Amino acid sequence: MKKVDLILQPKGLVQTVDNKPTLETGKALIILEGKIEDITSLDEAKKKYDSKEIIYLNDHVLIPGLINTHNHMSMSLMRGIADDIPLMDWLNNHIWPTEMKFVGPKFVEDGALLAIGEMFLTGTTTCSDMYFFPETTAKALEKAGMRGQLVTPILDFPTTYAQDGDGYLEKAEIFAKKYSGNPLVNIGLGPHAPYTVGDETFKKLVKLNEKMNLPIQIHLHETKGECDDSLKSFGVRPMERLNQLGLFSWKVQCVHMTQMNDEEIDLAIKKDLSVVHCPESNMKLASGICPVPKLLKKGINVGIGTDGAASNNDLNLLGEMKTAGLLGKVDTLDPTACNAEEIFHMATLGGAKVLGLQDRVGELAVGKMADIVAIKEEGFIDSFPNFNFLSNLIYAQSSQRVDSVWVSGKRVVKDGELVTLNKDELLERTKIWQEKLSQSS
Amino acid sequence: MKKVDLILQPKGLVQTVDNKPTLETGKALIILEGKIEDITSLDEAKKKYDSKEIIYLNDHVLIPGLINTHNHMSMSLMRGIADDIPLMDWLNNHIWPTEMKFVGPKFVEDGALLAIGEMFLTGTTTCSDMYFFPETTAKALEKAGMRGQLVTPILDFPTTYAQDGDGYLEKAEIFAKKYSGNPLVNIGLGPHAPYTVGDETFKKLVKLNEKMNLPIQIHLHETKGECDDSLKSFGVRPMERLNQLGLFSWKVQCVHMTQMNDEEIDLAIKKDLSVVHCPESNMKLASGICPVPKLLKKGINVGIGTDGAASNNDLNLLGEMKTAGLLGKVDTLDPTACNAEEIFHMATLGGAKVLGLQDRVGELAVGKMADIVAIKEEGFIDSFPNFNFLSNLIYAQSSQRVDSVWVSGKRVVKDGELVTLNKDELLERTKIWQEKLSQSS
Repeated sequence: MKKVDLILQPKGLVQTVDNKPTLETGKALIILEGKIEDITSLDEAKKKYDSKEIIYLNDHVLIPGLINTHNHMSMSLMRGIADDIPLMDWLNNHIWPTEMKFVGPKFVEDGALLAIGEMFLTGTTTCSDMYFFPETTAKALEKAGMRGQLVTPILDFPTTYAQDGDGYLEKAEIFAKKYSGNPLVNIGLGPHAPYTVGDETFKKLVKLNEKMNLPIQIHLHETKGECDDSLKSFGVRPMERLNQLGLFSWKVQCVHMTQMNDEEIDLAIKKDLSVVHCPESNMKLASGICPVPKLLKKGINVGIGTDGAASNNDLNLLGEMKTAGLLGKVDTLDPTACNAEEIFHMATLGGAKVLGLQDRVGELAVGKMADIVAIKEEGFIDSFPNFNFLSNLIYAQSSQRVDSVWVSGKRVVKDGELVTLNKDELLERTKIWQEKLSQSS
Repeated sequence: MKKVDLILQPKGLVQTVDNKPTLETGKALIILEGKIEDITSLDEAKKKYDSKEIIYLNDHVLIPGLINTHNHMSMSLMRGIADDIPLMDWLNNHIWPTEMKFVGPKFVEDGALLAIGEMFLTGTTTCSDMYFFPETTAKALEKAGMRGQLVTPILDFPTTYAQDGDGYLEKAEIFAKKYSGNPLVNIGLGPHAPYTVGDETFKKLVKLNEKMNLPIQIHLHETKGECDDSLKSFGVRPMERLNQLGLFSWKVQCVHMTQMNDEEIDLAIKKDLSVVHCPESNMKLASGICPVPKLLKKGINVGIGTDGAASNNDLNLLGEMKTAGLLGKVDTLDPTACNAEEIFHMATLGGAKVLGLQDRVGELAVGKMADIVAIKEEGFIDSFPNFNFLSNLIYAQSSQRVDSVWVSGKRVVKDGELVTLNKDELLERTKIWQEKLSQSS
């Protein structure tokens, strides 16, 4: 008998069958050294494996850990600091001034840990983050045990983190080298947006990445205004400008994309770009609607992101999945659009592909990392009866159903409570920031 | 000192000040015989009142109980039975056949109790319901202690409840007379929709109501298809047809209204119609979007409804409020549209006005019924920090924050648990129906 670390015996688990997420029953999941070693029948598992620990989950369905492909984690500390106002007002008069005053390593650490706690409790195991002081965020991810892609911020104006384009690029290079090969934390480049990064800095970024070959994530085509302004200033819309600058030599992760004409969709296909859909943020800031059903039909890979808590105002990917489903249907007036299987794919394997992590995460499959969420199937009057596991999970919102979470086989949530983080400590730290930020505004 | 039943001493409470929901602190709420007797300073309360019970809620904000203005409660038993499909397919091939096979008093009782449990735990104290066997639903409301408006179903085709228009109208009259003057349950007429009720039955309904003067609620202008079909069959769109038939002699509660041209908005103003906005159902069935910001600007009264759990798939009005806010913004591309105060008003006093209950519920005010929800302000990492109580409550979804609920001064939720209903019994009953319905489909 082969010695393994953990056997999970759930009521059911969701595997990819014929490219579709499918509920399977009567199977056990075997974990060794942080990876899924085997998925097999209960009988077979007992015969083949001698496990240090067996966990019986008779009332639970295992799903792959959810993947939040766009976040600004530390902005959790600015949750709801400025609601019901336009994007540019929100950025210029609220978010950026607050950031200039308060954002430093301590702010970033406390905000990231708060965000990770919220994401764990709602089933997210991998998160992509774009924010200042990513070195601090990396430590927060390692402390909590969350998998992440950190795209280092690149801007053409000074912040508390760096002074100019060169300064941000320099920090990015050092940081990426330091974390190269880290099993939990992947580093990428995060040019903020076409309207905050000039041509020269984009060119330097391209040059740097010819050497580094890092993932790139950028806010792109978030609003019609952004596209109109670019047309005025550069003679082309932002996507075409970035294309001319050579950015699409890599599979860029394009966040928001509420504006896409047919040529731009073709360009996305040709350049194998990924799209990150942030429905709640786009709705709340009235940015527009990403044409997800059309993109999926064209074969463009789409992931889901919550964006930061300052424009959402929560980091619950289950809720975001419901919103993505509802929004896709009403936008196209087609109730079959963005169905439960498609939404689930976007939040798991699709998200993994956005981040280039599809070989490691995104589904429960042998050889992948053991990033797993146990969903309680019964006992909640807000999600019962339950005729179809997937559509029930997505459309009947009940975040309390997340019972346990593992990342690389390490348990980070047990019985709906955080294991690697102390909730009371998170709340205490947050309270101090709330007081500071309140006094200043 | 005046003897009273209950004093609540919260951290804060939301009152209507200058027509806006406003967070007030340092006040106590005094309850006598199911009504709000007084709202005054803590010192004053101690001097003036001798209470049987005082409850200290140091970490809580009191809000008026939420009002769900459109539901089909017993359809909770069909939660998620047919997702991701079009309205007419959903009705003709799934919902109606299931109803013909299973719907009777027992189904209605179990479904209504499940729905009430879910609504209590998410802060709803008043619900409008349209479903078969409303006599049974009335008993469920009384058993659980929920306030409700029951609009009796009126159709021109046979169901397990009645055979034809006359049959439904006859039952409606008997039922309304029986419940006349009931303190908890209000009866109204519920002609299902323009496409399921013929002119003759509408005329008989109008005649009956000249005698009865009951509230009327109807599904109206839910889809473009409904309006187009009416134009073909009757030469006018549904609203105009109902107007010609005399239905708008009363302040009709028009549910859905995703299609409204300027003449129809004017007609709604002239006839003092109310609109019930069901954003999640309209999105999920891809029906369209009710132009709420425009209606609010024109002074039309709007309430919020979840619709039934078969098309939502939950009955959480807090979630519906978030969706209403986000949808209003993205639909108009105006991030200031449907702001937190407007959304809160729609879910409370606006909803009360829809149901004609504004003298009794919808705000925390002296003389109104003590329908109250205590929201926990701190302790949840998914809704902290908290810079603005109202927008935090709406945009940072956290249904677990509902700590206690009172209807007419009677506690129905305590520490997040049901008081008047037994959760395990609800789940057991639901499980039996799930098995029955699964076997048949």
